[in-house]
Amino acid sequence: MFITFEGVEGCGKTTQLRLLKERLQGAGHRVTATREPGGCPIADQMRAILLDAQNSAITPLAELLLYAAARAQHVQEVIVPALERGEVVLCDRFTDATLAYQGYGRELALATIEQLNQLATGGLEPRLTLLIDCPVETGLSRARARIEAATGAREERFELESILFHERVRQGYLGRAAAAPERFLIIDGSGDVAATEQRVLTALAGKVPELGAAFSAAQQAKP
Amino acid sequence: MFITFEGVEGCGKTTQLRLLKERLQGAGHRVTATREPGGCPIADQMRAILLDAQNSAITPLAELLLYAAARAQHVQEVIVPALERGEVVLCDRFTDATLAYQGYGRELALATIEQLNQLATGGLEPRLTLLIDCPVETGLSRARARIEAATGAREERFELESILFHERVRQGYLGRAAAAPERFLIIDGSGDVAATEQRVLTALAGKVPELGAAFSAAQQAKP
Repeated sequence: MFITFEGVEGCGKTTQLRLLKERLQGAGHRVTATREPGGCPIADQMRAILLDAQNSAITPLAELLLYAAARAQHVQEVIVPALERGEVVLCDRFTDATLAYQGYGRELALATIEQLNQLATGGLEPRLTLLIDCPVETGLSRARARIEAATGAREERFELESILFHERVRQGYLGRAAAAPERFLIIDGSGDVAATEQRVLTALAGKVPELGAAFSAAQQAKP
Repeated sequence: MFITFEGVEGCGKTTQLRLLKERLQGAGHRVTATREPGGCPIADQMRAILLDAQNSAITPLAELLLYAAARAQHVQEVIVPALERGEVVLCDRFTDATLAYQGYGRELALATIEQLNQLATGGLEPRLTLLIDCPVETGLSRARARIEAATGAREERFELESILFHERVRQGYLGRAAAAPERFLIIDGSGDVAATEQRVLTALAGKVPELGAAFSAAQQAKP
């Protein structure tokens, strides 16, 4: 059971992933929660290059290949072994993020990205993708507040992109979701954390009966 | 005029590149001398990941993609601009190294490597490739002596590979050279630095008349 979380900066996917992980673990599931880029020591070294605002001279193509390198390491070292152990794997960003950011955002050829995704993952696809959707202005103002609150943090590279870039990313995500409705759940992430969590649980409840226990508990907790 | 230097560890290519650079500059040519992986600050960050002996858990596929990422950055940021300025570009390792090490050495699919080389370089190929060839035992004993002499250096990742690995790399290089004789010059690198330099200059003299001045001077200096 491989579930990915996607969405624009500040959409709330990282928080929702953590909440779902806790709920699944509370219901007795073994869960690996991970993220891209990164998720293991070698890929985290690549992540540091990708997100460092000082590396603004990185070319779109080098960036794309570096994401693919980090993904290949992460899939082989973390995701595939966890799935083979029978765990639920929750991943914060995956192949759809590369299509949304490098394809729709940076406007690199989608066919090239699809080929690199295929190469880096060995064909592994998420069973389910939660797209936490919100207006880019909402997301960016949340992301800015988070960065300002963090001690000593500097603005990361993607927060420095234009509103138009992020708007293309959002539309890219929504287009991918429309093209693969059996895999995507689009969740309205414009409200507060609790409201979004309730929407996540409601959307998941009907979709993945094998995780049932975790979600029926959530349904009972509803007002 | 784009010239690459290739060969197994310790073959002497880095020294020969430096000597040729000095000779070309002495003859009035503008020269950019660079190397892979690396060659610019962002690609050097990737180089540090690739060569660190602590990263022995890197998968062959992640390694291949990371080389491609570093190459894309290096080609776009350093090599192409220097060629557009009309300079001679001398590069220590390039696409042939990826085929020799990741293809023949690690036995990854050659067709995949060719595709990634094509993507990362945008189709740029060396005009000439100097393959400095020597037995792998000779090269490795030189490389080990160099590493022991360097203060505080630890063994780099490729020096830790088996003799068989390096033998496959050498045979891969020789096979590539045999398949593209118009681009490759095979230079015997088993002798000392001065003997190898003389072989480099003799081989180049007939091949690249437009660099003539530098080499006719060398011919005159011959005993």
